[in-house]
Amino acid sequence: MSSNISNQHFTEEERETLYRVIHARRDMRHFIGGEVADDVLARILDAAHAAPSVGFMQPWRFVSIQKPELRGDLIALVEAEKVKTSETMDARKAEFMRLKVEGIRDCAELIAVILAPDDGTTFGRRTMPSEMALASVSCAIQNMWLAARAENLGMGWVSFFQPEDVAELLHCPEGAQPIALLCLGPVKAFYERPMLESEGWRAREDLSSILAEDSYPLATDEHR
Amino acid sequence: MSSNISNQHFTEEERETLYRVIHARRDMRHFIGGEVADDVLARILDAAHAAPSVGFMQPWRFVSIQKPELRGDLIALVEAEKVKTSETMDARKAEFMRLKVEGIRDCAELIAVILAPDDGTTFGRRTMPSEMALASVSCAIQNMWLAARAENLGMGWVSFFQPEDVAELLHCPEGAQPIALLCLGPVKAFYERPMLESEGWRAREDLSSILAEDSYPLATDEHR
Repeated sequence: MSSNISNQHFTEEERETLYRVIHARRDMRHFIGGEVADDVLARILDAAHAAPSVGFMQPWRFVSIQKPELRGDLIALVEAEKVKTSETMDARKAEFMRLKVEGIRDCAELIAVILAPDDGTTFGRRTMPSEMALASVSCAIQNMWLAARAENLGMGWVSFFQPEDVAELLHCPEGAQPIALLCLGPVKAFYERPMLESEGWRAREDLSSILAEDSYPLATDEHR
Repeated sequence: MSSNISNQHFTEEERETLYRVIHARRDMRHFIGGEVADDVLARILDAAHAAPSVGFMQPWRFVSIQKPELRGDLIALVEAEKVKTSETMDARKAEFMRLKVEGIRDCAELIAVILAPDDGTTFGRRTMPSEMALASVSCAIQNMWLAARAENLGMGWVSFFQPEDVAELLHCPEGAQPIALLCLGPVKAFYERPMLESEGWRAREDLSSILAEDSYPLATDEHR
């Protein structure tokens, strides 16, 4: 990549484009099948691989699920976990079971994202080894989310699974940890707001309750 | 946010703008002081708060460091951790100590990012509670990174610290975990490539070694 690219100046209009992508991105659970063209998928994965990583570890691994029977096995794991999750919900169990919480059956592409086994890197992660590796993979996924939105495709992060079960299905080596089943593909429409907000599951926090100067913003968490 | 905004169609040109931001973003350690205007900082923090979060937890908390003596205390923690990290490096210790690994003294703004105490959410995180909360905060930080780059500002994620020491300095409640000291501000130039790549510390992985179909890409990790 030339210095012209890394040092380019972004205009006000380009900056506004980025913000529009960031604010229009949604965690999607409603897909309409179809497909994702190879060149589109390649750009989205390139965006993932351009993410920052602690000590330049690049600890992200991607498995594109192609075989229908493998997708079926993953769906079964997700269905089982949804039931287990509902059992933690007490009064809101019925409400939870009515929500559409994932789109794993209907999305055009299903991509598992796996945290690679620890390679012993201490650069920037001596005190928080698992946290910093996971953070790097999460940044890669956020790049994919924004890339998908700019490609006018929906993406959803499904985390309803036991990681060890997914690891077994995908033949992961010891120490690798699946963290996401990404549903990707065409959607009929993007949610106006986060689905859990518009469905009344939970409210958006005020910026003032998550931000403070020189000291932790106690307004919210001290009362929890 | 109106449905026009969440459902807007992005053009090919807008998509290319996003990709240019993603590929021009760098983890910066060289800053030139200066300042970040209030409206710019507000847009960057708005981008953070527009990140996805598991179960709509929004577990991100931000502390803007204003007092010079507090920044000084944080610098001391980072310096101490850099020495401890160097002691893990054996043959590469001298090489590590010559690298500029953070810009905490020279950046215009310093922002601590903290994972809020667990609020008991099980939605999408029954099996991976700490991972999914941390992943959400990391997505928020990646939004900030891209926002900063589109504002023509540099950002660096400093993780050289003991989280409990930072928690004490920032009066965090029990269970809150600092994960980043973000250095933000004007830079003279962005690195052409990731600094650890151009300095010969570590190489970029081939896409083929991080991506496979239906099974974990064993090419890399099985040999480590």
